[in-house]
Amino acid sequence: MRLIVIGGVAAGTKAAARARRVNPDLDITLYQDDSEIAYSACGQPYYLSGVVTRRESLIIRQPKDFIKDGIDIRLRHRVESIDIFGSTVTVLDRNTGKVSAEHYDRLIIATGSRNMIPDIAGRDLDGVASLRSIGDMDRFHEVLQRLKPRSAVVAGSGYIGLEMLESLSQLGIEVTLLGRNRQVFSRLDTEMSQLLHDYLLKQNVKIITGDAISELRGHAGRVTTIATCAGIVLPTELVMLALGARPNVALAEQAGIQLGKTGAIAVNERMQTSAANVFAAGDCVESRHRLTGHAVWQPLGDIANLQGRVAGENAAGGDAHFPGVFGTSIVKTFNLHIGLTGLTEAAAQKAGFNTASMVITGRDKARYFPGSREITLKLVAEADNGRLLGAQAVGTGSIDKLIDIVATALMGRLTCHELENADLAYAPPFSPVLSPVILAAAGLCKQIKVNKSNHDCRDV
Amino acid sequence: MRLIVIGGVAAGTKAAARARRVNPDLDITLYQDDSEIAYSACGQPYYLSGVVTRRESLIIRQPKDFIKDGIDIRLRHRVESIDIFGSTVTVLDRNTGKVSAEHYDRLIIATGSRNMIPDIAGRDLDGVASLRSIGDMDRFHEVLQRLKPRSAVVAGSGYIGLEMLESLSQLGIEVTLLGRNRQVFSRLDTEMSQLLHDYLLKQNVKIITGDAISELRGHAGRVTTIATCAGIVLPTELVMLALGARPNVALAEQAGIQLGKTGAIAVNERMQTSAANVFAAGDCVESRHRLTGHAVWQPLGDIANLQGRVAGENAAGGDAHFPGVFGTSIVKTFNLHIGLTGLTEAAAQKAGFNTASMVITGRDKARYFPGSREITLKLVAEADNGRLLGAQAVGTGSIDKLIDIVATALMGRLTCHELENADLAYAPPFSPVLSPVILAAAGLCKQIKVNKSNHDCRDV
Repeated sequence: MRLIVIGGVAAGTKAAARARRVNPDLDITLYQDDSEIAYSACGQPYYLSGVVTRRESLIIRQPKDFIKDGIDIRLRHRVESIDIFGSTVTVLDRNTGKVSAEHYDRLIIATGSRNMIPDIAGRDLDGVASLRSIGDMDRFHEVLQRLKPRSAVVAGSGYIGLEMLESLSQLGIEVTLLGRNRQVFSRLDTEMSQLLHDYLLKQNVKIITGDAISELRGHAGRVTTIATCAGIVLPTELVMLALGARPNVALAEQAGIQLGKTGAIAVNERMQTSAANVFAAGDCVESRHRLTGHAVWQPLGDIANLQGRVAGENAAGGDAHFPGVFGTSIVKTFNLHIGLTGLTEAAAQKAGFNTASMVITGRDKARYFPGSREITLKLVAEADNGRLLGAQAVGTGSIDKLIDIVATALMGRLTCHELENADLAYAPPFSPVLSPVILAAAGLCKQIKVNKSNHDCRDV
Repeated sequence: MRLIVIGGVAAGTKAAARARRVNPDLDITLYQDDSEIAYSACGQPYYLSGVVTRRESLIIRQPKDFIKDGIDIRLRHRVESIDIFGSTVTVLDRNTGKVSAEHYDRLIIATGSRNMIPDIAGRDLDGVASLRSIGDMDRFHEVLQRLKPRSAVVAGSGYIGLEMLESLSQLGIEVTLLGRNRQVFSRLDTEMSQLLHDYLLKQNVKIITGDAISELRGHAGRVTTIATCAGIVLPTELVMLALGARPNVALAEQAGIQLGKTGAIAVNERMQTSAANVFAAGDCVESRHRLTGHAVWQPLGDIANLQGRVAGENAAGGDAHFPGVFGTSIVKTFNLHIGLTGLTEAAAQKAGFNTASMVITGRDKARYFPGSREITLKLVAEADNGRLLGAQAVGTGSIDKLIDIVATALMGRLTCHELENADLAYAPPFSPVLSPVILAAAGLCKQIKVNKSNHDCRDV
């Protein structure tokens, strides 16, 4: 029985490895358009800044590691079409130019995503860079080395944009953030986003919001100026386009495989597509949000790994299920940490929930313990019954712990009344005596009690 | 209506503050035997080592902060008896020597715990110290300043013993750990405890296990030698007794208030004792273990705060519940972090569970990210259905996050099958792409699947 995997960054390699472990007899071939597989895309900003010094360290597993496991890795092989009725894929070997038709019994599509690059004048000028594949990183690195820019505009205030503000600053480059939305990192509720905004200003980041690039201008082929829709004209020596991404679905779409509402490939809990024996995983698929039930597109490395594992297991004859996502994510910019899980208050209200929320500012260790740092946490719950809906955290402290506690609480469908008595790990080097999560949950309980006067807080 | 609170470290002050917030009209008096209230006992090792430089920073709230809230704080007042039928307490004012009988409508007992000091020869020699109250800390500090010991024996390998190994080492003192049990920090499963043992040896801690002090000998009133039951004779300039603690229940017992199996005061979920209108909280009470249902004694600062809050709320006319504990705790010794939540495998088996377990070693950030550190995690689950029973973690990395994730999972009664698809916060500075918790849960799932061949992993 032959398994073909298309794509070899996170989901594809994870799927192949898992399939091998589940079924040692499977014939597994992985086609990767690029020259490299199994690398950490998330580590790229840290290589560009010099925080990660060795490019090789971003390569999680080498082709030889897969070959040793009996997985046939074909680099620079582009799958050009899928025939779901004939159970074959057409593959172009970019090394030789040869095209062949390959039969599969099971197919896993893990074609990932690509950056959205707007159709603006000047986007091909030297000094205009973006980041997704390891090839993008190499080109970006080369540009930084050769041009040694002293100023940069980062267009886009999502994860990669925020990370690159730090990376470029660390290289001594003056950075300007240009965001389309009125608030920076628009995933957050306004008051939480404002904390990030204020912090970035303190790091000497210039911020332009509610605006977008209209044109890039250059001299002698090299970018020199950015012009915005609102009429701002700014000299710059580097432009990073971090304007979001789209799932790579052309192959699937042309094969007649069903896409979902988000535009990504629709899959069920077993990561099966609409086509028989065809699975998909990673950035090219959409997921079910576990609180709203809605389809969402969440192209993140950890989700790609989880989904790849499920797709690989099922393609090899197992029966694994991916339950969906809570939209958990985290990002570091300079020394500020920003994270969220579940629904923001705005998103929860939009989804029809009657919400209560609590924002508290505390510290990540006992106040008197050296190195304790600030954390602001917002907890959101259903006003009617206290069921947790989400958390957002911003601070220089260890917000990752708070987000993960709430992400786990969401899995357990816990209420704020349960969380306010959580038995968490306390010692002065690790936490205040009562975690900010407990304090915020207790604050929510009081509100919900007041909302429902004459009702016991516990009985809701 | 008058509320009297006996004891003013963690649970007592928290209870008084909460009662005030719930009922602004309450007449609240807090009697504290000591001269100080509301201090962090957990911070003491860090003051002794010099990591925390200001003694005042360990005082969380000053008496004046309580007085401002209309809480009558009586320092150096010792409650000598409780009459549960007459609803009065007899109080000795240690400042004046006067004794008075004070009526209460509600009473909260928060008398804390005391160290177990064995009845051995030489225990009163100069250079023999222990740590619980802030008075103990002051005496210990004075001894360190005056004697400037170059060697020390720490008797007891619990939380305080482990912390003091680090504190004394930081002062340049050569330390020997003397533990009664065959393993260091006996709360852990053997293989996890061994990691701690090996680490301590690398820090040049001498370790003697399965032995105890038989006698302390001195010269000119000052300790010089420790002799053990096994016949070891060791010269030393300082002896710290960290041999565990017992709840302070004499007042309650003499009043006819029921004690539990552990010897601590028995309370229900509302923190009510067997006596009408008498509540108790903190180190003097026992708790219900949420996995076994058994009574356990868990004298920890965070639990005291949670219980104090519940007792205060209820004493003021509210209706709060404390659901019990999972035995979550954490300790740092040198740069090693040791934590646990729920049941160890040994404890789970003793409680009658059929267990499966998984130990994995990973890192706390992406492997290539500078400063990523090692973590070993053991997850324990019910072999029959995968329900999580507990976690232990040892490592130089951020194990507190892993412990808190599992503590929250225990609240939600999650299985390893749910945890292996957790949507946790990933970015390279915060976590490997898949958290060690997810990897360990996935490992457990595989075992449980194998145990139940022909059964779907998800259907158990």
